[in-house]
Amino acid sequence: MLPFDVSEYQGRIKQTRTLMEKEGIDLLLITDPANMNYLSGYDAWSFYVHQMLIIDIHDSQPVWVGRFMDAPAAKVTTWMHEANIIGYPDIYVHSDLLHPMAFIAEVLRKRGNQASRIGVEMDHYYFSAKAFEELKKALPDARFQSADLLVNRVRMVKSDQELEYMKKAGKLAELAMFNGVQTIRTGNRECDAAAMIYYHMIAGTKEWGGDYPAIVPLLPTGENTSIPHLTWTDRKFQEGEAVIVELAGCCKRYHVPLARTIAIGPPSQDLLRISSIATEGINRVLDEIKPGMTCGDVEAVWRMSLQKHGIAKESRLGYSVGLNYPPDWGEHTASIRKGDQTVLQPNMTFHIIPGLWFERSGVEISETIRVTETGCETLANYSRELIINSPYVIEEHGEIS
Amino acid sequence: MLPFDVSEYQGRIKQTRTLMEKEGIDLLLITDPANMNYLSGYDAWSFYVHQMLIIDIHDSQPVWVGRFMDAPAAKVTTWMHEANIIGYPDIYVHSDLLHPMAFIAEVLRKRGNQASRIGVEMDHYYFSAKAFEELKKALPDARFQSADLLVNRVRMVKSDQELEYMKKAGKLAELAMFNGVQTIRTGNRECDAAAMIYYHMIAGTKEWGGDYPAIVPLLPTGENTSIPHLTWTDRKFQEGEAVIVELAGCCKRYHVPLARTIAIGPPSQDLLRISSIATEGINRVLDEIKPGMTCGDVEAVWRMSLQKHGIAKESRLGYSVGLNYPPDWGEHTASIRKGDQTVLQPNMTFHIIPGLWFERSGVEISETIRVTETGCETLANYSRELIINSPYVIEEHGEIS
Repeated sequence: MLPFDVSEYQGRIKQTRTLMEKEGIDLLLITDPANMNYLSGYDAWSFYVHQMLIIDIHDSQPVWVGRFMDAPAAKVTTWMHEANIIGYPDIYVHSDLLHPMAFIAEVLRKRGNQASRIGVEMDHYYFSAKAFEELKKALPDARFQSADLLVNRVRMVKSDQELEYMKKAGKLAELAMFNGVQTIRTGNRECDAAAMIYYHMIAGTKEWGGDYPAIVPLLPTGENTSIPHLTWTDRKFQEGEAVIVELAGCCKRYHVPLARTIAIGPPSQDLLRISSIATEGINRVLDEIKPGMTCGDVEAVWRMSLQKHGIAKESRLGYSVGLNYPPDWGEHTASIRKGDQTVLQPNMTFHIIPGLWFERSGVEISETIRVTETGCETLANYSRELIINSPYVIEEHGEIS
Repeated sequence: MLPFDVSEYQGRIKQTRTLMEKEGIDLLLITDPANMNYLSGYDAWSFYVHQMLIIDIHDSQPVWVGRFMDAPAAKVTTWMHEANIIGYPDIYVHSDLLHPMAFIAEVLRKRGNQASRIGVEMDHYYFSAKAFEELKKALPDARFQSADLLVNRVRMVKSDQELEYMKKAGKLAELAMFNGVQTIRTGNRECDAAAMIYYHMIAGTKEWGGDYPAIVPLLPTGENTSIPHLTWTDRKFQEGEAVIVELAGCCKRYHVPLARTIAIGPPSQDLLRISSIATEGINRVLDEIKPGMTCGDVEAVWRMSLQKHGIAKESRLGYSVGLNYPPDWGEHTASIRKGDQTVLQPNMTFHIIPGLWFERSGVEISETIRVTETGCETLANYSRELIINSPYVIEEHGEIS
């Protein structure tokens, strides 16, 4: 079931250990499921309980510790030796009395790591305040330090195989967008569009299917197009409304996000104006991106393009994207915003999302791109204009089997 | 857009403040998105950035603090006064330099809470180790204490309106299961089944659509039925295989999980045996459940039923369920397992999941139930036997517009 050659995982471990050495870390405790997957292949919906991948500066293999019922998932989805897979008893799950980190601390103690310099992912969802307290309590002689984003930084430049998965994810994003857009017409409901998007995002093509994306499709509608992170309701679409669709295709946990804006019937002058400003801005940005620029430089192109129209935008223009699990497909490393000094390199991948949100309207037209040797290329191919739908349902939907 | 009367939210706040007083907490910082929703109505996919609901023992209204671009979502989805909705600038998002908790600490300081007794959800996904460190650093005179599961405990007994949403979610679970099961035949792929499940779970009925569930459909297949938390791949189903489907219908963020096991073609003797043991066990448990029993008592019924067959099961039999967000639909309060002293009360809701997992096979047949005045009732109605599918595709699938 491994999506990459073992040698690719080994190379990632090697790069991680090099960074650990630089940071003075003996032992790295990975709780970010994307980082766990990246280094070991581990892939299961088990991150709602505490689990961890341990990287020892002296070992070429990680150690997995998690709930006993997920240990078989570690056996079938990773390249690790079975001896390195350790399950904790079920009584540790969601218990007032026992915490999985106490069990894990005991594992570390048995390995002789009670006084190690230990790196932890301090600001990750799946490393709670309590998890850290429990570890510190059980290992009072260990020296803990932040290893936030250490592995995430290794993830930024993608390999050929990773890019192949992202291209497949791009195709899934196109399919989901195309079929979802068809349902955005008077009389259909927001949930009908979301259902159709999901269907195509996952059934995919005859050659490959899709994974679940780390964020669900976002579908702000009407005045709520000013509110980017709303999902969907069972309200019916109305003629004259705008709808934003932000979704991602996902292949082997690699994401290609794509956002478009749809007008149901003839668009308002306001929507035409702001969508053309967004399109002009992203076109300019895509024309200019090349290796050697900083993320801050890229944002400046967008900011200048907006300034011509008298608009200032507070939110960042984009972020590094790729492998991930809920609740976010962003890698949390580089952001395309003023002051970000990250230098673009070939095979970095970004979601460029020039969203413009005003009091009662908004527009999003985004692309996921790969930085090439000389510029950039988009990973999904989809017309970049405002989409204008006939308001009438032109074919039968919602009557699947 | 509010799914409940304002008075229902006010009652929840009142119960929460009563518990705060009992625990000696002046100020409760809520980071669990389900608890945020429960108390305020807040509903958006924004929990991938730091955000918070502040409950003051002296105020009847909460305060929302989050990313500036999500403040409009707080305005449209909650019952709160606009003055209580505070956004932090985008530069705090995924930044090495600035942490949202520093901003939030400043909000607390301005409110005069710098020396308050502050309750925090120590073991929640969306309260990271770093978040706690930043708060402590910025508010050295505050006295922090754990308020883990304080609001979750208020959530355990459901109101009539909550149960109405759960009954609708139950109907969505039935629809998704029925249509998903139809696709589990030789030649179709796991992703085709997942896509069909998603379609029906979200498009729902003509009267109501569905929300995204907090856990994606789980589809362990063949030998992997021994591994409960695998999702799906694009591998084709084979005749003779077993498939476990675990999914949930979700309405207004309320979940009704449902698991069934499907044989593709005639089932093996082993599968017939373990599925009948599971069915017998859950039937017995559902017959016995009534208010006044403890969760431990309920588990004992299941354990005795298994013992007759010489089987011991380590994992818990179930857990409290209802309102939630990814990554889990469980409420993390009561678990149906040995020693859990939670006393069943009418209108508590549980997912009872007698999973049996062996070396190379497994079975899951689950029900979500409401405790009634005299017993219990299931919230989805679906035949509880092993499902035996003809291996051949009997209708056209996967060709949806």
